[in-house]
Amino acid sequence: MPESPAASDPESLPSEPRTLASIDSWWGQFDVVVVGFGVAGGAAAIEAARAGASTLILERATRGGGATALSEGTIYFGGGTRVQIAAGFEDTTENMLAHVKAAAGPTADPEKVRLYCEKSLDHFEFFESLGVEFKDTYYDEKVIFPPTDDCLIYSGNEEAYPFSEEAKPVPRGHKPRRKGSAGGYIIEQMIETFNALGGTIQNESRVLTLIKDENGRVVGVLAQIDGAPVAIRARKGVVLTTGGFIMNRAMLEQFAPDLAKCNYPIGSDGCDGSGIRMGLGVGGAAINMSEGLMTTPFFPPVGHIKGLIISKQGQRFINEDCYHGRVTDAILRKADGRAYLIVDDETYGQSIGGYKMVAVEETIEELERSLGIPEGQLVHTFTSYNRFAMDGVDPVFHKASKYVTPLDHPPFAALDLSIDKSIWAVFTLGGLNTQATGEVLSVDGQIIDGLYAAGRASAGLTRSGSHYASGMSIGGSSFFGRMAGKSVAAAD
Amino acid sequence: MPESPAASDPESLPSEPRTLASIDSWWGQFDVVVVGFGVAGGAAAIEAARAGASTLILERATRGGGATALSEGTIYFGGGTRVQIAAGFEDTTENMLAHVKAAAGPTADPEKVRLYCEKSLDHFEFFESLGVEFKDTYYDEKVIFPPTDDCLIYSGNEEAYPFSEEAKPVPRGHKPRRKGSAGGYIIEQMIETFNALGGTIQNESRVLTLIKDENGRVVGVLAQIDGAPVAIRARKGVVLTTGGFIMNRAMLEQFAPDLAKCNYPIGSDGCDGSGIRMGLGVGGAAINMSEGLMTTPFFPPVGHIKGLIISKQGQRFINEDCYHGRVTDAILRKADGRAYLIVDDETYGQSIGGYKMVAVEETIEELERSLGIPEGQLVHTFTSYNRFAMDGVDPVFHKASKYVTPLDHPPFAALDLSIDKSIWAVFTLGGLNTQATGEVLSVDGQIIDGLYAAGRASAGLTRSGSHYASGMSIGGSSFFGRMAGKSVAAAD
Repeated sequence: MPESPAASDPESLPSEPRTLASIDSWWGQFDVVVVGFGVAGGAAAIEAARAGASTLILERATRGGGATALSEGTIYFGGGTRVQIAAGFEDTTENMLAHVKAAAGPTADPEKVRLYCEKSLDHFEFFESLGVEFKDTYYDEKVIFPPTDDCLIYSGNEEAYPFSEEAKPVPRGHKPRRKGSAGGYIIEQMIETFNALGGTIQNESRVLTLIKDENGRVVGVLAQIDGAPVAIRARKGVVLTTGGFIMNRAMLEQFAPDLAKCNYPIGSDGCDGSGIRMGLGVGGAAINMSEGLMTTPFFPPVGHIKGLIISKQGQRFINEDCYHGRVTDAILRKADGRAYLIVDDETYGQSIGGYKMVAVEETIEELERSLGIPEGQLVHTFTSYNRFAMDGVDPVFHKASKYVTPLDHPPFAALDLSIDKSIWAVFTLGGLNTQATGEVLSVDGQIIDGLYAAGRASAGLTRSGSHYASGMSIGGSSFFGRMAGKSVAAAD
Repeated sequence: MPESPAASDPESLPSEPRTLASIDSWWGQFDVVVVGFGVAGGAAAIEAARAGASTLILERATRGGGATALSEGTIYFGGGTRVQIAAGFEDTTENMLAHVKAAAGPTADPEKVRLYCEKSLDHFEFFESLGVEFKDTYYDEKVIFPPTDDCLIYSGNEEAYPFSEEAKPVPRGHKPRRKGSAGGYIIEQMIETFNALGGTIQNESRVLTLIKDENGRVVGVLAQIDGAPVAIRARKGVVLTTGGFIMNRAMLEQFAPDLAKCNYPIGSDGCDGSGIRMGLGVGGAAINMSEGLMTTPFFPPVGHIKGLIISKQGQRFINEDCYHGRVTDAILRKADGRAYLIVDDETYGQSIGGYKMVAVEETIEELERSLGIPEGQLVHTFTSYNRFAMDGVDPVFHKASKYVTPLDHPPFAALDLSIDKSIWAVFTLGGLNTQATGEVLSVDGQIIDGLYAAGRASAGLTRSGSHYASGMSIGGSSFFGRMAGKSVAAAD
């Protein structure tokens, strides 16, 4: 028997559902049971409660939060939000759609993409209805998130080739009005809102598995509460919002071997794929499972974007002004996970990642030798780049002009961005296959009655780390969490 | 509801198992029921029958064959076969293991790899026991398969960097003694052998779904025979050897989007993932689902290997002497699916793929312009390559010396190998997660009682098209088919 995440814990085999016939009594009965209180679970529960459904959230930690609470809290909105207008940017639903179609990735669900863009202003209002505040300001520098309480940033590939040719670039990352990270703030507003609606939150309650009736319909959950397993009835349905599986080593190696190579998983302890496993156990299909967001954040400082990212052959392979996740994905796929950032004395700065400087030389020829790159390869890359850079252009990989400048101030340094030498942060983008309504589908495309999923437990809005933008995770998870909450509340 | 493969055929929802309680009568009862008669099913059934189990094979076509019958029939054996020795090659189990560890891909199951290598001579004898003949000859040219009835070829990456540094190169592709393709011959020998053992073959019998008892054990199948659904009991177990899912467009788009881009699927009509879906429906996990073998066979002629494969930026990105599938994988991942093969007048020849020649020019400068490659990039690639080639070396991508020669005989031509411009053949390498015994596992690592899988319906020996060798599919599918047949025959 291969080692499994549950090998030592026979009570924790989420993929084995219980039958209704095996249940003697109910700990409680609700219209809707939401499993996991991150941003997807909170959004689902709030919409279900607002629609009048009696709603329980089961959260295995001591308090809601999930991966959202660990994040900076950026949300991807567009189509002309109050903040975009105040900051002087003109956006439309069509323009947002043109970019999000690309940013969600080639495997995205067109229906989810369309709904997300068409209802973006409504979704902005949803967050305002929770009491989440956004400042009407734009932070005018390429950053991963604003260090201030400013709101709007370019959080993805909008300004980078080829995305810049497909839609007019507009910033759409909205960070709530908090200095530093704002993810916890979002969740606290959700807790307050859900409590005010009369919803029930049961913390420190781990869901063990689903309960299904003789027709295969999901009718409740088995949960560990106060040290004992109890059955909880869900009259209308169960919503799985348990997060992804970045913390489950066995699942990662089986389903997402590339992601398993990264050394810095981003998620809470709960991101162990339990909801995905529960869904599989009742016939749901999991898709997009090998995909994720990987990132080695080589900027800020913005000067690094003016540097060159090269393979061990001394070749460039990506425009360095892309979203950091897209650059990282290219390092893995195009350069076998090994790359250097080459900067000169003018472009170098201390980066947040603390990358190791592996060579400093007065000439490119010396740097080429130091790095063990075959003779003439890095020299060609530099000579060619600098020649075009005199005119402010990069015809080979199309870095935007504002980041193109000749690199001619020695010394030249190489920072190691390789997957085995630097921080590579990672989370998963695969999960249960759902309709936009949140209904979970089997591999044959049939609806699993009574079962809904959203957030990282599902294959949601954004499907590809090489096309991603910050804010699409919290944005998509909350949006389709809301859809699931409305659907389940309206179910028979 | 999204379009599903089964949308128009409600009787064909393999992922929905039937309960034993719903079965009124049995069409037949056997110890072992094997679903699908390709090389995996044939091997499983023969071993089960040899162990004394009453065995039924259900085949949906008019005769056994599957994808194997469509193939050239190469089988990957090593460790010192009779043919290897006769042809003057020295191989050992350790040397074979060193290569197969790499060739099976980074996500391979080490236990399967080890068993496959340790028992390779036994597996060769198994094929001889079927009456499959192998000629004691070596075909001394880099080909995809010998056009003659010769046997031994280098069928993978053995001689190519970096594989050549990890194990002593030895040829291990063994084609049976037939001119042209020999896949059908293998299957015919299996049919004869199985019949002689008293086994039962039921052709034109499509399995609709599995039947499970109240404990979740698989106890039979529901099959369409003579136009009516009938239940068939499997006392010891069911072996799913139904092939992969390359012919199921919906599954391909959901689970293997890169493979879905290829225009030439390789498989039989039965390769629609029905067995994988059946396994998922009773709680099995499917892994490695996004992987497959993609190939645009740019050689023979062998001269093409001496050419340069370049991206739209004019860069090389792979040693051109790799296995064709590895080169093709690199075109997709490293060059965004767009590449040209550049040859000069001495290296060009008519290829089996009939690639389109998109430019012919007297100089590389002109070719660069014709192809729209940014100025100086292709010129650098050529100048640098030719300079090193004077010494017969390729320090940048490590093509083997015998294929390295200066390209200096104009005119120069570009053949388009791009995914949207040439033949890209493809099949899938993902399926049900099994132990080496063939037992199917859930996502929590639990055995699904009564259910076995082998061949393309499972995630078998070889998991990666970028590491693959021809012969590992038929080799691995038949080997682990045999393992499954032995296991199920020994079950309670």
